[in-house]
Amino acid sequence: MADLLGVAVLGAGHMGADHVRRLDRVVSGARVAAVADPDTARAAAAVAGIEGASVHAEAAAALAAPGVQAVLIASPGPAHEEALLAAFARGLPVLCEKPMVPDSAGALRVARAEARLGRRLAQIGFMRRYDAGYLRLKSLLDSGELGRALMLHCVHRNVSSPPHFTSAMLINSSVAHEIDAARWLLGQELTAVTVLRPASSAGAPAGLVDPQFVLFETERGALVDVEVFVNCGFGYQVRCEAVGETGSARIGEEHGMVVTARGGAREEVPQDYLVRFADAYDREVQAWVDATRRGRVTGPSAWDGYAASVVAEAGVRSLTDGGRVPIDLAARPDLYAPAGR
Amino acid sequence: MADLLGVAVLGAGHMGADHVRRLDRVVSGARVAAVADPDTARAAAAVAGIEGASVHAEAAAALAAPGVQAVLIASPGPAHEEALLAAFARGLPVLCEKPMVPDSAGALRVARAEARLGRRLAQIGFMRRYDAGYLRLKSLLDSGELGRALMLHCVHRNVSSPPHFTSAMLINSSVAHEIDAARWLLGQELTAVTVLRPASSAGAPAGLVDPQFVLFETERGALVDVEVFVNCGFGYQVRCEAVGETGSARIGEEHGMVVTARGGAREEVPQDYLVRFADAYDREVQAWVDATRRGRVTGPSAWDGYAASVVAEAGVRSLTDGGRVPIDLAARPDLYAPAGR
Amino acid sequence: MADLLGVAVLGAGHMGADHVRRLDRVVSGARVAAVADPDTARAAAAVAGIEGASVHAEAAAALAAPGVQAVLIASPGPAHEEALLAAFARGLPVLCEKPMVPDSAGALRVARAEARLGRRLAQIGFMRRYDAGYLRLKSLLDSGELGRALMLHCVHRNVSSPPHFTSAMLINSSVAHEIDAARWLLGQELTAVTVLRPASSAGAPAGLVDPQFVLFETERGALVDVEVFVNCGFGYQVRCEAVGETGSARIGEEHGMVVTARGGAREEVPQDYLVRFADAYDREVQAWVDATRRGRVTGPSAWDGYAASVVAEAGVRSLTDGGRVPIDLAARPDLYAPAGR
Amino acid sequence: MADLLGVAVLGAGHMGADHVRRLDRVVSGARVAAVADPDTARAAAAVAGIEGASVHAEAAAALAAPGVQAVLIASPGPAHEEALLAAFARGLPVLCEKPMVPDSAGALRVARAEARLGRRLAQIGFMRRYDAGYLRLKSLLDSGELGRALMLHCVHRNVSSPPHFTSAMLINSSVAHEIDAARWLLGQELTAVTVLRPASSAGAPAGLVDPQFVLFETERGALVDVEVFVNCGFGYQVRCEAVGETGSARIGEEHGMVVTARGGAREEVPQDYLVRFADAYDREVQAWVDATRRGRVTGPSAWDGYAASVVAEAGVRSLTDGGRVPIDLAARPDLYAPAGR
Repeated sequence: MADLLGVAVLGAGHMGADHVRRLDRVVSGARVAAVADPDTARAAAAVAGIEGASVHAEAAAALAAPGVQAVLIASPGPAHEEALLAAFARGLPVLCEKPMVPDSAGALRVARAEARLGRRLAQIGFMRRYDAGYLRLKSLLDSGELGRALMLHCVHRNVSSPPHFTSAMLINSSVAHEIDAARWLLGQELTAVTVLRPASSAGAPAGLVDPQFVLFETERGALVDVEVFVNCGFGYQVRCEAVGETGSARIGEEHGMVVTARGGAREEVPQDYLVRFADAYDREVQAWVDATRRGRVTGPSAWDGYAASVVAEAGVRSLTDGGRVPIDLAARPDLYAPAGR
Repeated sequence: MADLLGVAVLGAGHMGADHVRRLDRVVSGARVAAVADPDTARAAAAVAGIEGASVHAEAAAALAAPGVQAVLIASPGPAHEEALLAAFARGLPVLCEKPMVPDSAGALRVARAEARLGRRLAQIGFMRRYDAGYLRLKSLLDSGELGRALMLHCVHRNVSSPPHFTSAMLINSSVAHEIDAARWLLGQELTAVTVLRPASSAGAPAGLVDPQFVLFETERGALVDVEVFVNCGFGYQVRCEAVGETGSARIGEEHGMVVTARGGAREEVPQDYLVRFADAYDREVQAWVDATRRGRVTGPSAWDGYAASVVAEAGVRSLTDGGRVPIDLAARPDLYAPAGR
Repeated sequence: MADLLGVAVLGAGHMGADHVRRLDRVVSGARVAAVADPDTARAAAAVAGIEGASVHAEAAAALAAPGVQAVLIASPGPAHEEALLAAFARGLPVLCEKPMVPDSAGALRVARAEARLGRRLAQIGFMRRYDAGYLRLKSLLDSGELGRALMLHCVHRNVSSPPHFTSAMLINSSVAHEIDAARWLLGQELTAVTVLRPASSAGAPAGLVDPQFVLFETERGALVDVEVFVNCGFGYQVRCEAVGETGSARIGEEHGMVVTARGGAREEVPQDYLVRFADAYDREVQAWVDATRRGRVTGPSAWDGYAASVVAEAGVRSLTDGGRVPIDLAARPDLYAPAGR
Repeated sequence: MADLLGVAVLGAGHMGADHVRRLDRVVSGARVAAVADPDTARAAAAVAGIEGASVHAEAAAALAAPGVQAVLIASPGPAHEEALLAAFARGLPVLCEKPMVPDSAGALRVARAEARLGRRLAQIGFMRRYDAGYLRLKSLLDSGELGRALMLHCVHRNVSSPPHFTSAMLINSSVAHEIDAARWLLGQELTAVTVLRPASSAGAPAGLVDPQFVLFETERGALVDVEVFVNCGFGYQVRCEAVGETGSARIGEEHGMVVTARGGAREEVPQDYLVRFADAYDREVQAWVDATRRGRVTGPSAWDGYAASVVAEAGVRSLTDGGRVPIDLAARPDLYAPAGR
């Protein structure tokens, strides 16, 4: 069993349990060595039938369990900072679900802690970088065929928002994905954000500002606009059009089967991000396992996690206060190469 | 010949000559009775072979020519106000190319003059209202199937801009179409505009701010965004997505033939608005001729022409000065029903 | 009124009345001078409000009416031969709805009669040659970009068949369009036909062989397959894919507006051929009027009408008797250039 | 290591090496325990760096190697029968690439041998049954939403054929996939086949009959047509449209990214079946590993492999001799449930 990477999974909620399943049954080269959740019954249920997986109430105990060689953090965001620092202390490679750390101050502490180690241990769970469509678009942009990228038009729609979803979460939970995707696709930092509020939908819970329309500016003058609408009622849609000096490219309009029957031609729209990005999650975790087994760390870095936090905080400020909010990042530690390069 | 509507065409340039051809050979129920252009050789060339069409240097002479029952104004914008007032003085129905009058003060004079007549004589040439795609979208929005409209995402791209095209003209010539289309589709006035400037394309002439990204707010809280890019290099594209509370609808992505050959599957992109909107121009003029022969005036009104001028002027101010510019319309004369109803 | 082409319309049924409307209100340069129908009340209703249109019970009387310069035949198929010969006798240009003549012997008599005149007078109403999609496909095939055409895959579906529609009519009424389109697109005669019978749909009237699958061979070895399904239940669909040595091209999958709402993304499917081919009918009649006014005859010829009859008869024989039926055309009079050239 | 399924891979050519990579790095729950190829250097290269994988010249030696619990047969077709029987003798579950056995007599021997065992051990590598598109289509057909299936229209195109590809191989290697897919989608046996020969493409090697057009009839009256064109020059395309009594559904027209640049809008066309069906191969092998570890055998059976051989032989006879060839299957052993149920 020496050749299977032993992974401790922190958190056994919806996402944590899904990652346990993925590590156990989908991904090659890894096994679940430990799982931690304050609700140990839930943790035990997640690893039922998985040989050799120990169950813990505390994250620290899971990290210290026998056979643990790497950590996958899927606990609630507020627990991430402590878990990341603990993994760093043990020198364990870690895949951390987004948000890396909910507040930018904490995110910066994590990035600086890793920078002090002098080597990367953390990969952040921005799974869109592993989606086939986004990869094609990134590759096209990097090829130069479209010339310089001038604009990204993005759409991010959910059928309905979960309970307790707040107006700020449209930015720091939903648009967080577009924030990372834009930085990565363009290879540029975002420098300002403006959040606009169209009339809210009658389909949204009372008081929720939904939809929102978010504008980002970048360091080299590109403009990124995002419609985020988390109670659109009809499906989960993530689209992105990149407009360059000599052409444009669109992703996210894939369809699988066209059915023509009474009422016209129709295509299925996925209802859930776990369906739409199932392959991306699989590829993300497989890539992390593969790199980790070879002693490498790739993918989105703690700096990317930090930058996303800063941008999201500025976005929430714009939503609350109105107007354009500039984005100020701390100095980038040498450990982190510029975004997207 | 009593039953054919005798039309005087003012202006024999590109657009005027095209309308002469359309009245003579495409549209049913009309004939070209007169044409006016300061360049009378150009005017004569436009009506070569058309029996019974007189040629004039002066618009006034054309209006007074025998057999003239209606007027189509396709002269340069600065000549429109005088021509419209002259047509009103003679009680002649008129189809006036956009912009109705380039400045909003003149446009208001025209609307008020018509209001004083107490009956409509003018239809303004916003041909998108006659495009099959826009008509479908309007019909869908009016049906209520999508719930209340919350956003319109618009794209307006040209291969390249003509000589002497200015940054302001991206607003008052190109986006002018989206201004009218948004007012018509939503049945609402626009209340504010913000023009953003992404990095300009290397493919645009030096000094031209191209592309631009324009945001409109409406009286009932909808948000309209428009990418206008008049040197995109690859084609003429006009797209519009309406996002409502319960669904979205997109037009402008039609394709005629899918060719699969070396290099992938491809679809033609029209290169020119006269190609893309050829049917819309035909339907517009046919509808005008049909209504006129029945003694009626339909279609976009002088008020729509005035409102478009005011919005465009506010947009140009935002482009020049930066920031959000509120839009103030004069009181609407009773003659003009609210937009889109 | 000298410059408007005076047309006698024979037949005031569904199609005839539609052509009366088209000549009166859509097409430029023509007027309805006479209409004939044994049911004169129906004829009178069709031209109600049209100035100068006389009403007749007999086709011959309509042809002889004052002001008649050309004839549009939209009477039932069995009346076509006599009407065509009468028009030839008077030297009147004629647009004849398909089928030109229902039986090939009669069709050949018509073609030979016209050949004896030594000049073309008849255009046959195969309106697909005027459809934008088919024109694009024809142009692409003629350009040589796809290399030699090897196959055409065709689909022809109707929502439901009219009363009294017979199994043979799937061939000689519906597939008749594909017969002409294939000859025209490929510029080749068809040499054999095989009709296959999949299980009939429970949605078809009892006894109707529906769908059918029809295979045509051509003189230079291309293969044409046609699914014809006239009770498909969901819409009117006409598609064609041409497969050449170096690429393929598909038409008939156009869509106008994509609506995304509960249940997925959907596109409208037209329900009726008068909707799907409305533009083609308009262009067909306009082209005929334009050519006629210039003293020319263009478009599908009596030979094309004859060839379609022969092919359809062979198809019906294959449907009835089973197996492959060779197609034998009479010698082509010199008047008629090879198909499609 | 007890929990990882030890697999012997027979054959280390293109496909075998790809399966070694897949078992080692993509699939969860399996490891490569042995590999066999007469070219042992090639076998050794395929497992370079894989711990615990033994290398053999003989298939029999690989089956007997320590740790081997299951067999994946990717050797040339003529070696399959002996390998399958050897696996049966050892009671080893086996995944066998198509064709199961090239000749139907051998295929029947295999099916009968397995039937004598009284339990299934073999899954045949018809990977389309694991493709997301085909699965959607199967699910839709089984739902009854389209009513009874009346026709399948299939297209199977390759950029170019490999060296030594024969006219018969268009049937027994390429169309073999459509044969299995049609049986599976429809849940019916095929009862007759007719192969038609359009003019061959100038792009095909001299003497190769390419494209071909193949018609299958089924036991309950459905019709299946397949265009197979293995030198189409532009890409790898696999499409299928199912036409039922109340609707139709199409798969295989997916696109990932739409690029609009000079020359129009374009979509990538995959160039290779390993790209197009990469996910299907991954899912196929994962499903086999998962089932095998639970002691089950699912997926296409030896009977499916036999039926495909019989149909392909009939197709080759039709290609050679012309005309319609009936398909006669041997009596189905009780072990094998009807196709598709």
